[in-house]
Amino acid sequence: MLYIIGLGLGDEKDITLRGLEAVQKSQKVFIEAYTSLLSFEMYNLLQEKLYGKSITVADREMVEEKADDILLEATSSDVAFLVVGDPFGATTHTDLVVRAKKLGVDVKVVHNASVMNAIGVCGLQLYRYGETVSLPFFTDTWRPDSFYEKIQRNRKLGLHTLCLLDIRVKEPSLESLCSYRGKKQYEPPRFMAVSVAIEQLLEVEQMRGENAYTEDTTCVGFARLGSEDQLVVAGSMKQLLEVDFGPPLHCLVIVGDTHPVEEEMLDFYKLAKKQGQA
Amino acid sequence: MLYIIGLGLGDEKDITLRGLEAVQKSQKVFIEAYTSLLSFEMYNLLQEKLYGKSITVADREMVEEKADDILLEATSSDVAFLVVGDPFGATTHTDLVVRAKKLGVDVKVVHNASVMNAIGVCGLQLYRYGETVSLPFFTDTWRPDSFYEKIQRNRKLGLHTLCLLDIRVKEPSLESLCSYRGKKQYEPPRFMAVSVAIEQLLEVEQMRGENAYTEDTTCVGFARLGSEDQLVVAGSMKQLLEVDFGPPLHCLVIVGDTHPVEEEMLDFYKLAKKQGQA
Repeated sequence: MLYIIGLGLGDEKDITLRGLEAVQKSQKVFIEAYTSLLSFEMYNLLQEKLYGKSITVADREMVEEKADDILLEATSSDVAFLVVGDPFGATTHTDLVVRAKKLGVDVKVVHNASVMNAIGVCGLQLYRYGETVSLPFFTDTWRPDSFYEKIQRNRKLGLHTLCLLDIRVKEPSLESLCSYRGKKQYEPPRFMAVSVAIEQLLEVEQMRGENAYTEDTTCVGFARLGSEDQLVVAGSMKQLLEVDFGPPLHCLVIVGDTHPVEEEMLDFYKLAKKQGQA
Repeated sequence: MLYIIGLGLGDEKDITLRGLEAVQKSQKVFIEAYTSLLSFEMYNLLQEKLYGKSITVADREMVEEKADDILLEATSSDVAFLVVGDPFGATTHTDLVVRAKKLGVDVKVVHNASVMNAIGVCGLQLYRYGETVSLPFFTDTWRPDSFYEKIQRNRKLGLHTLCLLDIRVKEPSLESLCSYRGKKQYEPPRFMAVSVAIEQLLEVEQMRGENAYTEDTTCVGFARLGSEDQLVVAGSMKQLLEVDFGPPLHCLVIVGDTHPVEEEMLDFYKLAKKQGQA
């Protein structure tokens, strides 16, 4: 049996009782560490305090290239595969399930909170979001902007837009990809900050000039959503550019039309109010 | 302190360790029982096995009319308010947070899985959903169809649509609302089944005739999502009409354009395959 277990968003205490039981009866435990941020502290806590057994950290290479080894173990014993958030936040995990089913391995999923529902905390109703967009880090030569039409469409319909911000963990460096010899070199991990996301959004708006949004558009920035020290701040793009959201992960919501209850709740997170209260 | 704690989707074991700790240190525990389905068995298990303290079931009247009593207790002691799924699935809970903040009551949210992310289990990627729609029970005189344009829009963009199906728990009967005397009478609880949802969808399509979808459109029906006995079946609307999904809760996804990984995963849930395997 392969258990795919969501760990939720905060720390080692966000696993469910059902998830913990599955880990405890598994002979082998893997933890996925590339579609989200798994802190060293959390890893150690998980290992020592809760599970009392060794955990193998599975990076992108292991999951994408050596999935069959993991699945082979799951044919004859219980294997737990831990994922930060909910198991189906990322396509990779769907692919793992497809492979498992093809090999005849039984799969059980233990759900948990993910960014996709925890953003509800800011008061914007989840059923009033349009299509989600991903903002990739721009490079000198690669500045894709297909998110622009999607945001524009959502905003024309009065819908909110969740922007997932780029996470680059253990990406092979360009140099190492171009070289046929030598071992793979990796770039240092990078997590896009709210300010970088807004800079890129405004750069694209300036280029396209169709007023999909402006620097006065209301947004909500989130950092470490679901953790004890989460930060949620609402304000215009211009205002949020100046906010130091601190350590990753960050994400951003571009606000559409709001209902009164949404507005009231958003008010608690607004920048002017926050400073006034401080 | 007011803890608003998501219970997740399945049973008493879907609470997180963080949620359980908060319940254990609370002096008073309420459980919300009208935006989702709280089974009698689950209630008893929660009360006896996990929490060891008495739980007050909060119906719609209590939360909407007597919220201040709950909040008053939270000013001087720890109060836990339990919600099936994630705390921000329903507008009512946002409203409770707004009231709490206005009264100066500290609020902590413990997230969990909700329908909004657990539908990921069928393989359709969460970021490829458009706006969510709600399907209300039609009556002889009330047949609202504003969901039609939304589904049409999503499908034109190739996006999937989550349809939340009506839940009617402890609704005052029409007779009792029309009478000034006597005590309030309630309708028996009703939960919309996938087949009723599809019948209503097809009725509206026949009336509007704009081909937003047809009886051949691929959908995914879900029953008891996140539970041990969950049922997920993919097929055309016509096919799903014939499927007995069993006890509530149900929900329905109208499938948009699919990517190869989505298609592969959906195949495992397709009706013909399922029957072939049986």
